[in-house]
Formats: sequence, C-alpha cells, structure tokens
Amino acid sequence: MSADKFTELTERIKNFCEERDWSQFHDPKNLALSLQLEASEVLELFQWTKNNEIRSGKEVDMEDELADVFYWVIMLANKYNIDLIKALNQKMDKNEEKYPIEKAKGVSSKYTEL
Amino acid sequence: MSADKFTELTERIKNFCEERDWSQFHDPKNLALSLQLEASEVLELFQWTKNNEIRSGKEVDMEDELADVFYWVIMLANKYNIDLIKALNQKMDKNEEKYPIEKAKGVSSKYTEL
Amino acid sequence: MSADKFTELTERIKNFCEERDWSQFHDPKNLALSLQLEASEVLELFQWTKNNEIRSGKEVDMEDELADVFYWVIMLANKYNIDLIKALNQKMDKNEEKYPIEKAKGVSSKYTEL
Amino acid sequence: MSADKFTELTERIKNFCEERDWSQFHDPKNLALSLQLEASEVLELFQWTKNNEIRSGKEVDMEDELADVFYWVIMLANKYNIDLIKALNQKMDKNEEKYPIEKAKGVSSKYTEL
Repeated sequence: MSADKFTELTERIKNFCEERDWSQFHDPKNLALSLQLEASEVLELFQWTKNNEIRSGKEVDMEDELADVFYWVIMLANKYNIDLIKALNQKMDKNEEKYPIEKAKGVSSKYTEL
Repeated sequence: MSADKFTELTERIKNFCEERDWSQFHDPKNLALSLQLEASEVLELFQWTKNNEIRSGKEVDMEDELADVFYWVIMLANKYNIDLIKALNQKMDKNEEKYPIEKAKGVSSKYTEL
Repeated sequence: MSADKFTELTERIKNFCEERDWSQFHDPKNLALSLQLEASEVLELFQWTKNNEIRSGKEVDMEDELADVFYWVIMLANKYNIDLIKALNQKMDKNEEKYPIEKAKGVSSKYTEL
Repeated sequence: MSADKFTELTERIKNFCEERDWSQFHDPKNLALSLQLEASEVLELFQWTKNNEIRSGKEVDMEDELADVFYWVIMLANKYNIDLIKALNQKMDKNEEKYPIEKAKGVSSKYTEL
C-alpha cells in the first residue's frame, strides 16, 4: 500500500537533504528568504504587463518558478513539522464559514463587509 | 476509491472559488502579487533576529502564514493547469543528478562548482 | 544659483522619462512591482549567510542594487508628487518623539513598549 | 553655508541611530530584510486592482510607505558608505547612453533590442 503522492514528495525532499547533510545550511531564516526570492521570480513574469496577464512568452516559465516556490514551502513545513495539507484544509474550513456562497457570490468584499 | 489528499485539496479550492464566481477577480498578476505579499509575511517572522532563527513567540504563526503561501501557489497552479507534484518531482530528478551524494555531502557550493 | 543635488537628480529622472515618452509605460502598479523586485535583489546579496553579513564578494554589488531601488522610489515619488525629503523628515520628527534618547538608548523594543 | 537637504537628512538619520546606540541591532541583512518588507507594503497598495492603479482611498498612504522604503535605502547606504546621489547619477549617465532619445522614444523595448 503506497503513501499518497504529496507525502511521498515531502519525504523525498527530506531524504534528499539528509543524504547530503545539508540541514546545517538550512536555517529557517534563510529558507524564508529563499521562499521570498522565488516568489519574486514568479511576480517578475508579470512585470510591465498592462492587462494583468503574464508577459508574452513567459507562460512556459510559470511551472518552473512555481515549483521553486513550492519547494521552499515544503522545506519550511518540514523544518517546523507542519502538515501543510491539514493546515490549508483548516483554513478552507474557516473560509467556507466566513464567505457563505449566497452572500459572497460575485462579490469581492472582504468578509467583514459582507 | 478516494483521490489522494493533495488532489482533494486543490479541487476543494477550485470549487470554493467557482461556487462564489470569484475567478473574475483572480487574474494571474494579482495572484502572483498576493503570493509575494504572503511570502513576505513569512519572512517578517524573522525580522531583526540575529541567529537566523524565528522571532521568539512567532513559531505558532508559521503554520498559518505558510498555509497562506501554499494557498496562492495552488491558486496559480490551478490557473495555469500545472501539476505541482509532478513539476517538483521533475525538479528533484534534476537535483539528484546535479548534486550526487558523494560530491555534495556537507558541501553548500552550487552544483556548477562541484 | 543651483538647486540642491537631490532635486537635480529627481528632475533629471523626470526629464529622462519625458524625453523618451515613457510615462505611458510607467503605470504606478508596475513601478511598485519594479521597486519590490529590486528590493529583492538587495536581499539576495545576503542569501545563505549565517552571520547576518553580506555574501563574500558581493559588497561591490550593493551600490548598484541600492541605486536601482532608489530609482524606483524616486519614480513613484515623481508619479504622486511626493516630496521624499520632507516626508522622511516628518517621519524622523515623529521617531525622535517616540524614541527619546534617554529611554531608547541601547534598547531595541518598539516604542509602545518603552 | 548649509549643506544640501539630502546630506542633512542622511546625517540626521545617522545621528538618530548613533545617539540611541542602535547600530548593534542594525546588521545589514536585517536592514535589507526591512527594506524588502517595506517595498512589499508599497506593492500591497495595488493588490487586486485591475487597471494598474492604486487601490481606491490608498493614495494617502503612498507618501508614508514610500518614506519607509527611503529610510531603509538610506540606512543601507550609510552602512556601506555609499553616496546614493552619485551612484544613481552614474546609472543615469549609462541609461542616457543606452537609450538615446531618437531610438527610445515611445519604445519600451530593452536597450539590447533597440
């Protein structure tokens, strides 16, 4: 019986770093800094566009840049033993409560203004 | 037979937005901008620390902030039909090739310098 | 009688853009985005350092990266007719009030805790 | 005979920190991190806007946020003894050379493509 693919991926990343004895370099502040830098590279794909779309020809880079961000999210989660899936599901529980469909449909207001 | 938990989560987020007719607000540039802003909130947990650790008393906020980043990563992946698990596994394939254990163990150099 | 050097610089930048008819590209959101990207390049000079210092050999890049950030600060100030010197002096007026020397000396606490 | 207003401001900030003995807290990595966080606050003023303009009612915050960014730019320049005005003027010298008016007018292409 196999684990699910997300758990397999986080384990793979954990093992990759352990086998190379890299945890000594991976203090959490530098992980957070790397996360921020990769998020900026995603944002850079939209620099100077007028219509809120991605820069022409840059669609192919999105997958690569987004995977980089995802990597540092998992690295930080591993560092702090955070169950990302559970954490985000709990957030979605709250979101569904805060933004009931009948009130939030087609409305962009923050939930405090609904 | 149930889907794995990551797929379930991405579907849940997709449905959440569709039911509220929110895709009209979720142009990709603003998604990328939100991702960057949440990544900065993770980084803020380390502001002014000297030892590369998280600010005292802020460990409890990490789960919440990291889930926020994870949310926008999934939102962008949904927008561009990106399979995040597959994309990051492909990246790890390359990492394992670029950083062979025998050469990379305990070494922080970039692979081009190994 | 010559203007001071900061006013001369802001005027130079304003003229540079006007002569090239570039204001059509310089919507404020993209200016803010560019500011953020350049600030990230400053931060990148510190990636993976342990002692809170700049990466070895990167000191020479600081001047260049910081000038890039300064450029977008001035561009945004020009866009909104903000007098940066006056705005920051007013902020310093408040800082001097919030952090009196006798209380703040050698103390890193936020002023609300003094 | 008085110094120009930019030099006066940088000296004022230098004295403010020295009088409070705060340089011990102001390692350059945390200065760069603070710069990045404040740049993100500028960017946040544009979150979710569609037309590349600032969020309605947020114009009044721009002066304040921009002054915060300017503060950390000057703090880093003071730390590394960088003459910001000179550094940016040198950059403008190069820009004027790279983007001659006759070629660059109304054209947003990078100079390598002119």
